[in-house]
Amino acid sequence: MAADPRFFPAAAPLSLAEAAEIAGATLRGDPAQRIQGVGPLHEAGPRELSFLDNRRYAKLLATTRAGAVVLAPEMAASLPEGLAALVTPQPYLGFARIAARLHPAPAPSGTIHPTAVIAPDAKLGAGVEVGPQAVIGAGAEIGDGCIIGPLAVVGAGVVLGEGCRIGPHASISHCIAGRGVVLYPGARVGQEGFGFAVTPEGGFFTMPQLGRVLLGDFVEIGANACVDRGSQSDTVLGVGTRLDNMVQVAHNVRTGRSCVLVAQVGISGSATLGNGVQMGGQAGLTGHLTVGDGAQISAQAGVMGDVAPGERMAGSPAWPARETLRAFAALRRMGQKPGGA
Amino acid sequence: MAADPRFFPAAAPLSLAEAAEIAGATLRGDPAQRIQGVGPLHEAGPRELSFLDNRRYAKLLATTRAGAVVLAPEMAASLPEGLAALVTPQPYLGFARIAARLHPAPAPSGTIHPTAVIAPDAKLGAGVEVGPQAVIGAGAEIGDGCIIGPLAVVGAGVVLGEGCRIGPHASISHCIAGRGVVLYPGARVGQEGFGFAVTPEGGFFTMPQLGRVLLGDFVEIGANACVDRGSQSDTVLGVGTRLDNMVQVAHNVRTGRSCVLVAQVGISGSATLGNGVQMGGQAGLTGHLTVGDGAQISAQAGVMGDVAPGERMAGSPAWPARETLRAFAALRRMGQKPGGA
Amino acid sequence: MAADPRFFPAAAPLSLAEAAEIAGATLRGDPAQRIQGVGPLHEAGPRELSFLDNRRYAKLLATTRAGAVVLAPEMAASLPEGLAALVTPQPYLGFARIAARLHPAPAPSGTIHPTAVIAPDAKLGAGVEVGPQAVIGAGAEIGDGCIIGPLAVVGAGVVLGEGCRIGPHASISHCIAGRGVVLYPGARVGQEGFGFAVTPEGGFFTMPQLGRVLLGDFVEIGANACVDRGSQSDTVLGVGTRLDNMVQVAHNVRTGRSCVLVAQVGISGSATLGNGVQMGGQAGLTGHLTVGDGAQISAQAGVMGDVAPGERMAGSPAWPARETLRAFAALRRMGQKPGGA
Repeated sequence: MAADPRFFPAAAPLSLAEAAEIAGATLRGDPAQRIQGVGPLHEAGPRELSFLDNRRYAKLLATTRAGAVVLAPEMAASLPEGLAALVTPQPYLGFARIAARLHPAPAPSGTIHPTAVIAPDAKLGAGVEVGPQAVIGAGAEIGDGCIIGPLAVVGAGVVLGEGCRIGPHASISHCIAGRGVVLYPGARVGQEGFGFAVTPEGGFFTMPQLGRVLLGDFVEIGANACVDRGSQSDTVLGVGTRLDNMVQVAHNVRTGRSCVLVAQVGISGSATLGNGVQMGGQAGLTGHLTVGDGAQISAQAGVMGDVAPGERMAGSPAWPARETLRAFAALRRMGQKPGGA
Repeated sequence: MAADPRFFPAAAPLSLAEAAEIAGATLRGDPAQRIQGVGPLHEAGPRELSFLDNRRYAKLLATTRAGAVVLAPEMAASLPEGLAALVTPQPYLGFARIAARLHPAPAPSGTIHPTAVIAPDAKLGAGVEVGPQAVIGAGAEIGDGCIIGPLAVVGAGVVLGEGCRIGPHASISHCIAGRGVVLYPGARVGQEGFGFAVTPEGGFFTMPQLGRVLLGDFVEIGANACVDRGSQSDTVLGVGTRLDNMVQVAHNVRTGRSCVLVAQVGISGSATLGNGVQMGGQAGLTGHLTVGDGAQISAQAGVMGDVAPGERMAGSPAWPARETLRAFAALRRMGQKPGGA
Repeated sequence: MAADPRFFPAAAPLSLAEAAEIAGATLRGDPAQRIQGVGPLHEAGPRELSFLDNRRYAKLLATTRAGAVVLAPEMAASLPEGLAALVTPQPYLGFARIAARLHPAPAPSGTIHPTAVIAPDAKLGAGVEVGPQAVIGAGAEIGDGCIIGPLAVVGAGVVLGEGCRIGPHASISHCIAGRGVVLYPGARVGQEGFGFAVTPEGGFFTMPQLGRVLLGDFVEIGANACVDRGSQSDTVLGVGTRLDNMVQVAHNVRTGRSCVLVAQVGISGSATLGNGVQMGGQAGLTGHLTVGDGAQISAQAGVMGDVAPGERMAGSPAWPARETLRAFAALRRMGQKPGGA
């Protein structure tokens, strides 16, 4: 199945020679053969490129109608006669690069919709697109080539680097963002964090939230995800860090580069994450702790203390994954005995 | 307590004879008696209809001031003298049908607010209502009688069947929807999923998300819930499937008919659910697995493998509910011993 | 680090004498010394006030460059020579009061943006601010000094007390709110809850949701959080209750005063919470249960039954925290034995 032309403009065709070059792959097949789209092995047609990244699906090579396949050298032996291939040790990356050439992200139109409300002293870079009903506050600085979606709000003083995309209904305030930052629809960046003091009468007195959000280059914030600004220091997401939908990042959190937080993760206030930390869906971190570089936190885990670099944690409360697996295997055996433990 | 007239228009009264017919119930009482609203047993007044669905509340029959009650045949023995009743084996359904007659969902006004921004080539069916500041993109097709709420965004090319309701601040793109589909406020449908390849430098390269979202008739998507479009295939929600608030559905997920996903559930990419699957609040499914027809996943469960049809799963990691209950009962006994295990 | 002037107006300076009075603290130092901002101990400069609330950070007193520090009497012994101090048994509250005087919440501008769409019969109090593209429905009543943010929606008939703040992209319908209520960006209040009856064919028939949301004075609803209206009764949040981001409150839930629900908490339908209940992040309550005054529910806990006043619960399923801690300690020992249990 090619991309639906209702939603995606038709791609200009690529020759396999061009595709191989884009992917940094070795071509087995006719360099002049053309592809015009991409698709999964079981759905792609003869004008489309597919990929194989998982030995589990290798048997689909025998039946695919795809025009060509990107795959790893160790899979190449399974190639049927007549199926063109782009061979590379990183087939998923190679495939992504070709797909992005065939279907590039929409370029900014360079037009400002007349219904947008833009403060007179906001500075818009070259080629910026501003969608219908969007609102840009006083003194905001929008870098070249940014796309501000319909009904988005960019607050007063916000700075966006070049090529940022702010999705429909997203809001961003009190933030300095690098280039290539993406907010998906409904993302919330820069609002006040959850902070208050208890009064002698048992009520709550709001602690002013006086920090900012600093977003490194190419940070992405998923749909309806929330990143609160710092209370006195800043909330910081490092270069390339990606948040999936509905992730919560509380005030004063700091992450390193290239962290991956899957949907519905929650990070409590003032936690510090190193580079390359990965957290599975619905996992949570309590506040004021440190997670080292490259640590991996399983889905639904609940981390309550510092995590060493490279450590894998699982469970709620979270323990090193090996311990958790062993403990829960033992627990399950207790559940499988008819009489209980 | 009747519905507050600030928010709900006064209902035209129904006779008990009419109500019994709507509910498919047998009437015990005066067919000409009139009701004009509904309410719970402890709050309903003499002009209001109530219902009893749970033996726990049967004692309220003795004291209720309700004008009439919908209940099951086996409860009818508890009816006090003089309290009218509509007797049916499905009292909750019967009550819902009468309530919906008294308080129908708002009909589309058939007016387009002058502040809405509608692409010149969008096609709007008969009687469509478009609220203030809403945005409808190029080539979108809006079926007869749809309501597009204030500040909603319908993206380019989107197709909505008859009688859909898109709530305030909801956004929908890259989607083909059947009739009677409802998006609650802030729902996000059709945005890019979470997909990228790792580069040799440890950064991320975005995988273009080239699929769609297909929503069956009468699908409902809760407030601030998110349904990502497919990466190459489509994300599909079957007829009648209902998502509560803040549910996450990742790219390429497919569900059958009439699934029920309670608030804050998360479904990872490429999971497949059969018909009638039910998931309790905050439960999660890891990716690329299959859940059979009629399976039930408990609240907060974390499912990490395929689930057989009709199976009940509980716990994180999730096991068959019977095993989980037994295992945790044993675990709790360990916690109740003063010295620990 | 002082608050960034891009985002926060410069504060008028306070003398330490004035600050001490605001905080109800005893001053040790020069009453005429001036402060002009606040900051954490390791970042504050000589014109800024800091605070010490936690013995762990007492050693920072020796090196801080802050102009003065708010701290408790028992910490005062650690004060280095020449560092001014405001001594009070409630340093965090005192600090918050001073910070709020230096950096007050933005006052309403008293202007209605020309792009806002306001029903002719809506009633706006004195000094109300309505932002760009906001929508206010028929018959709504907005109290004096409210701020309706850009792109917010206030539904027909909604009543807001004095001094409420409705954030960008927030929506509120079917709601009567007290004074000082705050909705953060993207919060959803008053939409229909998740209710339906099953038809004989296995489909779902929507139960009309005919109740309201009643918000007590000073209730706060976090970014992208959801509070559904009641089905027949009302959903009620008591005075001063605070919801963090992405909290879910289902129909007919009732809370007492000053409850604290941390991010991503989920409360199922018809649960009743007493006064001062606290729930940690990602915790969940099943429906139709009662949680007593002052109960504390740990992060990620899953509460499945009534909770006594003052009880602490932890785990999923949740048990009294002492039992859970002991049980999981025993379980972990099983995971640490090389051979399993």
